[in-house]
Amino acid sequence: MRIGILTSGGDAPGLNAVIRGAVFTGIQVHNCEFVGFRNGWRGVVEGDIVPLGMPEVKGISKQGGTILGTSRTNPFEGIGGVDRVNQVMQENGIDAMIAIGGEGTLAAAKRLTDAGIRIVGVPKTVDNDLSATDYSFGFDTAVGIATDAMDRLRTTGDAHDRCMVAEVMGRHVGWIALHSGMAAGAHAILIPEQKTSVDQIVEWVTHAHDRGRAPLVVVAEGFSLDTMDDAHSERGLDAFGRPRLGGIGELLAPIIEERTGIETRATTLGHIQRGGTPSAFDRVLATRLGMAALRSVLDGHWGRMVALQGTEIVHVPFEDALGRLKTVPEDRYLEAKVLFG
Amino acid sequence: MRIGILTSGGDAPGLNAVIRGAVFTGIQVHNCEFVGFRNGWRGVVEGDIVPLGMPEVKGISKQGGTILGTSRTNPFEGIGGVDRVNQVMQENGIDAMIAIGGEGTLAAAKRLTDAGIRIVGVPKTVDNDLSATDYSFGFDTAVGIATDAMDRLRTTGDAHDRCMVAEVMGRHVGWIALHSGMAAGAHAILIPEQKTSVDQIVEWVTHAHDRGRAPLVVVAEGFSLDTMDDAHSERGLDAFGRPRLGGIGELLAPIIEERTGIETRATTLGHIQRGGTPSAFDRVLATRLGMAALRSVLDGHWGRMVALQGTEIVHVPFEDALGRLKTVPEDRYLEAKVLFG
Amino acid sequence: MRIGILTSGGDAPGLNAVIRGAVFTGIQVHNCEFVGFRNGWRGVVEGDIVPLGMPEVKGISKQGGTILGTSRTNPFEGIGGVDRVNQVMQENGIDAMIAIGGEGTLAAAKRLTDAGIRIVGVPKTVDNDLSATDYSFGFDTAVGIATDAMDRLRTTGDAHDRCMVAEVMGRHVGWIALHSGMAAGAHAILIPEQKTSVDQIVEWVTHAHDRGRAPLVVVAEGFSLDTMDDAHSERGLDAFGRPRLGGIGELLAPIIEERTGIETRATTLGHIQRGGTPSAFDRVLATRLGMAALRSVLDGHWGRMVALQGTEIVHVPFEDALGRLKTVPEDRYLEAKVLFG
Amino acid sequence: MRIGILTSGGDAPGLNAVIRGAVFTGIQVHNCEFVGFRNGWRGVVEGDIVPLGMPEVKGISKQGGTILGTSRTNPFEGIGGVDRVNQVMQENGIDAMIAIGGEGTLAAAKRLTDAGIRIVGVPKTVDNDLSATDYSFGFDTAVGIATDAMDRLRTTGDAHDRCMVAEVMGRHVGWIALHSGMAAGAHAILIPEQKTSVDQIVEWVTHAHDRGRAPLVVVAEGFSLDTMDDAHSERGLDAFGRPRLGGIGELLAPIIEERTGIETRATTLGHIQRGGTPSAFDRVLATRLGMAALRSVLDGHWGRMVALQGTEIVHVPFEDALGRLKTVPEDRYLEAKVLFG
Repeated sequence: MRIGILTSGGDAPGLNAVIRGAVFTGIQVHNCEFVGFRNGWRGVVEGDIVPLGMPEVKGISKQGGTILGTSRTNPFEGIGGVDRVNQVMQENGIDAMIAIGGEGTLAAAKRLTDAGIRIVGVPKTVDNDLSATDYSFGFDTAVGIATDAMDRLRTTGDAHDRCMVAEVMGRHVGWIALHSGMAAGAHAILIPEQKTSVDQIVEWVTHAHDRGRAPLVVVAEGFSLDTMDDAHSERGLDAFGRPRLGGIGELLAPIIEERTGIETRATTLGHIQRGGTPSAFDRVLATRLGMAALRSVLDGHWGRMVALQGTEIVHVPFEDALGRLKTVPEDRYLEAKVLFG
Repeated sequence: MRIGILTSGGDAPGLNAVIRGAVFTGIQVHNCEFVGFRNGWRGVVEGDIVPLGMPEVKGISKQGGTILGTSRTNPFEGIGGVDRVNQVMQENGIDAMIAIGGEGTLAAAKRLTDAGIRIVGVPKTVDNDLSATDYSFGFDTAVGIATDAMDRLRTTGDAHDRCMVAEVMGRHVGWIALHSGMAAGAHAILIPEQKTSVDQIVEWVTHAHDRGRAPLVVVAEGFSLDTMDDAHSERGLDAFGRPRLGGIGELLAPIIEERTGIETRATTLGHIQRGGTPSAFDRVLATRLGMAALRSVLDGHWGRMVALQGTEIVHVPFEDALGRLKTVPEDRYLEAKVLFG
Repeated sequence: MRIGILTSGGDAPGLNAVIRGAVFTGIQVHNCEFVGFRNGWRGVVEGDIVPLGMPEVKGISKQGGTILGTSRTNPFEGIGGVDRVNQVMQENGIDAMIAIGGEGTLAAAKRLTDAGIRIVGVPKTVDNDLSATDYSFGFDTAVGIATDAMDRLRTTGDAHDRCMVAEVMGRHVGWIALHSGMAAGAHAILIPEQKTSVDQIVEWVTHAHDRGRAPLVVVAEGFSLDTMDDAHSERGLDAFGRPRLGGIGELLAPIIEERTGIETRATTLGHIQRGGTPSAFDRVLATRLGMAALRSVLDGHWGRMVALQGTEIVHVPFEDALGRLKTVPEDRYLEAKVLFG
Repeated sequence: MRIGILTSGGDAPGLNAVIRGAVFTGIQVHNCEFVGFRNGWRGVVEGDIVPLGMPEVKGISKQGGTILGTSRTNPFEGIGGVDRVNQVMQENGIDAMIAIGGEGTLAAAKRLTDAGIRIVGVPKTVDNDLSATDYSFGFDTAVGIATDAMDRLRTTGDAHDRCMVAEVMGRHVGWIALHSGMAAGAHAILIPEQKTSVDQIVEWVTHAHDRGRAPLVVVAEGFSLDTMDDAHSERGLDAFGRPRLGGIGELLAPIIEERTGIETRATTLGHIQRGGTPSAFDRVLATRLGMAALRSVLDGHWGRMVALQGTEIVHVPFEDALGRLKTVPEDRYLEAKVLFG
C-alpha cells in the first residue's frame, strides 16, 4: 500500500511526531510505502511530492514545524477538485491519504471522501478548539510556553509593582488562556467565550493589587471587551472604529493603567507559542495519533479521524469534529474564576 | 470551618498547587480557615501544626516539593491511632482534613474515615500507578524531565556511536518509562509489567544499531530480567544473588555491551525526576484537584478522593484507588513496542 | 557594621543573587547587619526600610526580579539630596550603602560619594551597555531566553516558508541582538550601532531564502532604518513622522514582505527577556559581584563599583562606567555579518 | 583551499557550532572546500571522509553531539603516524586540517604540525580544564544542566528534610562543581583540587541543617576523600581497597547519613551533562571559535589553537594549552567556601 501524507494549516508542535508514528509503523511493520505532499493541499493539487522513508523521519519527533511544509490552500481552489486529486493520486500510485489539519482540512477531507477518495484524518489545532478530541497535540506545548513566559513576567511585574498583561493565542476559544492562566496564577483570564466588562477587569486587578500582588491578566487574542462593537471587533477595528494596530493586550494595558492607576505593560507572546520542541505529552499524543491513523488506513476506515478520549485513541467520523467549536464550558470558566482577583 | 491539610509519602511536583487551590478557594470564597500538619501524618499524630493562610500560599504553585514537608509516617504507628487523631483535631479545633498522598495515605485515611473522622483525599503518585484517576499530578513533570534528559543522552550516544541506557522511576509500573520512551524515540522500553529476555533486548538494540541509530534503552527501576529470580529481585539481589549496588540500568549496560559489542553507558535519572517546577499540565491538574477537594469537604463527601477522568474532576470512594495498581495495559505496551528496534 | 542595599532601575535576572551574596557573606562571616531600601532610591529618600537577614535571602538566587522592589526614582528628586540621604542613614544607623543599578544609579551614587556618603556600586544592565565590565548579570539570561524563542520561531518559519522578524531588547546597543542572533543562526542582525538600509536587509533575506532557508531577522528595539530621520526616531515617530505604535519589528515586517514577496511575521519578545530564573552564568556572576561589593564596603573602597574582567572580579571607579555606552564594536559586528544572508 | 575537519574525544555541546562557523565562512566568503573526517583521528588514519558543505551544516548549531562522530583514537596508533596522515591528506587533496579536541588531540596535533602537517586547533573540554582559554564551549551548557538538576534536587530535599548529594563531571578539576554549586546555593562543594575531610563535610552539612536548610552537597566525580589512599582512588578502588561500583557521590551519601543522622541521597548526573542543545553562550563561543579557526587556516597560523580571553578570540600555540591542567585556583575556591555550611 502506498500512502500520501499532508500537513495543512497553521503549524503545531507534534506534526512531525504524527508523521513519524505513521511512517515508522507502516514501513517497519506493514510493508507500506509513503510519500509526502509538500505544503498541504497545494502539494496534492500540484502533484508536488517528496519521498518519505525511514531516513526522512529519523529523529523528527522532537522537531517543531513540519518536514512537509504547510499552507492554507484548499484542495478545491484553482485547478483543484475531486478529479484533480484523483488524478494526482493515480499518477503517483497513491492508494490513500492521511490528512493532518484543522477544521478546514477535515471539511475538505470530508468532501473528498464523500466523493470516494480514501482519506483518514488527524485533528490539529494548537488552540484546542476541535470537538471530538479531549486534547489536540500542540496545545500542551503552547500552554507550557505561555506559562513559562508568564512565570517570567510575574517576577518583573513584582519588581516594578506593575500589572502585566499577557496576550496568548486563541482566536475563537480560550483554552490556552484558561490553562496557562491557571498554571501561572493569573488574577484575571479573559476569553472569547465570556464577555467581561472593563469594570470587572479593573475590580480584579485592583483586588489583587490590594492583596499585595503584581496583577497578571491573561487575555486570549480573540477576546473583545463588551464595550466593543462585535462588528468592529470582527473587522479588526478598535472600540472607536479605528484600525487596531496591536492586539487586544496592547489595547487593554493603557485602559487598565488609566482606570487603576497601576503601571501596566502588555506582552504579546505570538508565534513563539506554536514553534519549537514539542512537550513530551504532545510527542506521545502525536505519535499515538499517527500510529492510529495508519491503522485506520489499513482497516479502510475512510472518512474518519483519530482522536483522544480520556487516555484512549478512538476513531470518529469527520463530521463529529466539524461545525461546532469546542469552547471553554461555563463550569470550567467559573472554576478558574474563583482564583481571580 | 477549620480544615487541616497534610502531604504524605514521596514528594511530587504539584503538591503545593493542590494546597494553594484548596486554601485560596476556602479563604477567599468560603470563609474557611486552614492549618497545615507538618511532615505528613507525623504532624497529625504529634500535633505539629502550622498556620496556612493567603501569605503562605502566595506564588507556591510553581514550586516543587511541599511547603508542609512530608514523611512516610503512618498515623497508626506509635502513639497514633483513631483516638489520637481525634484528640489532635479537637484540641486544634480542626473540623476536617484533606490528605494528599499515595496508596498508603489513602488506606490510612480510609481506616480513619471508617472510624468517623472527616477526611477527603487527593491522590498523589509520580509513578501514575493509582487506579481511579487517569493521571496523577507530578507524572507529566517527571515524564518531561526524563524526556529532556533522553534528548540529551541521544546526542551524546550518536556522537560516540554508543548504546545509552536510561533508568527512570517506576518501582511497580512502567508509565514513566512508556511515555518518556515513546516521546524520546527509544528503541526498547523495559517495564515491570512485561518480563523481557536479554535476547529480546539484544535483538532490539542490534536492529536499531544496524539501522544506523545509537540505541536508546529506557528501563523502569522496577524492571527485572526474566533470568532474575523474583525472590532475588525483591530482596535487592542481582541475578547471581549478590547485593545490587547500582540500579537495573547499571546492571543492564554491561550485559548489553558484552552481548552486542556496542559500547554501552547507563544513566540513572533518580531524584531529579520528582523535584522542581511542575509542568503547566500538572499545575492545572493539581490546582483543580485542590479546589475540588475543598468542595468535597464543604459538601461533606468524607471517605472520597478527587480524581481526573477524561477532562473532568470526579469524586470516587477511597477503596476505588486501593488494592490494585494501575499498571500499563498490554495494548499500550504493544502499541509502543511497534516502534522498538 | 550596618549596611543598606538598594536595587534601582529596570530589573535584571540576578539582582537577588547579588543581594544574597552580600548579605550571606556579611552576616555569616563578618558580623555585619543589613537593611534593604524599598523600591530603589525612593526607599532611601523616604526612609522606607525593611530588615534583610538570613531568612530574607534564603533561596533567592534563582528568583527573578528583586525582593527589594525597584523604581526609577533619582535620589536628588523632590525632598531628596545629600542631606536627606545622610539623615535617613543616620536615623537608621546605616554606615554604608550598596547600590545596584545602571548608569543613572551609578551617576547618582558618584554624586553622593563625592559628597562624602559611603557607597559601593554594582553595575546592572540587561542590555550589557555599561563600560568597565565585560558582562553584566542578566544579559546571559536575556540572550538565552531570546535564543530559545528564536529556535521556536525558526521551526514555524520553516513550516510556513515565512520570514520571521524577532525584536529583542537593546535601546542603545545591540549586544542581545548580536549574541542571540549568532546563537540562533540569524540571517540578519540589526543593531542601533549600525545603520543598515532596507536594500541591504532585503538582500540578506532574499539570499537566505534563495538558499532554502526561512529567513530570521533579529532586530534590537533601538535600531532605526537609515531612511528614518534620527529626530523622528528619538521621539518615537515612524519614518513618516507618525507616532510609532508597534516597535521596529512590526514596522519592518510589512516592508520586508512587500519588498521580497516573502510572507513575513514579527514577534516582539518584550518583558519576558528580563524576568524569571537567572541562568547559572548570571547567578555565579551576580553572587560573586555581591560578595565583592561587600568586601569593598569592608575595605572602605567608596566610590567604586565591582566589575567582571575576564574571569576576575575587579573594582573600578564609578566614573569608568559613566559617560560612554559600551557599544558593539565594529569588528564584532563584522564577525557576525559574515554569517548573514 | 580544501580543509578537513575532525572532532575527537568526548563530545561537548557546541562541536557542531564550531563546524558550522568554519564551514559557513569558508564556503560563503572564502571559496574554500571542506570535508569531514569521520570519528576523530580514526577517520584521518582510515581515510574515512564525508562531504561537508552548506547542506550538511544547516541548522546544526543548536544540535548537541557532533555530526562527524568522534572517538578516542590517537593518530599515531596502529597504521597511523605522520606519513599515513600525509598520505590520506594528499590522496584526498586536503591542504589543511582543523582539529577540535582536548589535550590529547592538541598534543597529537602538535606532533603532526612539528612534522610539517598544517593543522589549526580548537580546544574542547566540557570540564573547562584547558589552559590558555578562559572558557571552553560545552562548559556553560554542562553547568546549566547541573544547576537545573540541583534546583530540582533542592525542592525534593526540602520536602523530605534530606541531604542531597549531586555528583557532577570533573575528573581532574572542579570547575563544573564550583559554578553549578555556587549557582544552586550548595552548602558544600567538593573538588579534586581540594582535599577535604569527612569531618569538614559533616560540619558543613550539620551547620546548614541547623539553619533549617536541606543540605546540598555538590561533588566532582574526581574528588576523593583525604582518608582515601590516592593509589586506591586512581585505580577506582574505594577507601577499603574494594572496586568502586558507584561514583564518589554514592560513596559519600551513606557516610554523611551515618555521621550526621540526616537522611541522605545521592544522584549522579552523568551523561546528561554533555548532551543536547548547547546554551546560547556556548553557541556564540563555538561559532566564533570555528570562524577564527578558519581565519587561522587562511592566515597559515599552523600549530596554533584559537582561544577565548576576556571577550576576545585569540590565537595561541598548542603548547600553551598542554602539560598543565587549568585547575580551580585557591582564591576561587575560598570565595565559594564562604557560602558553605
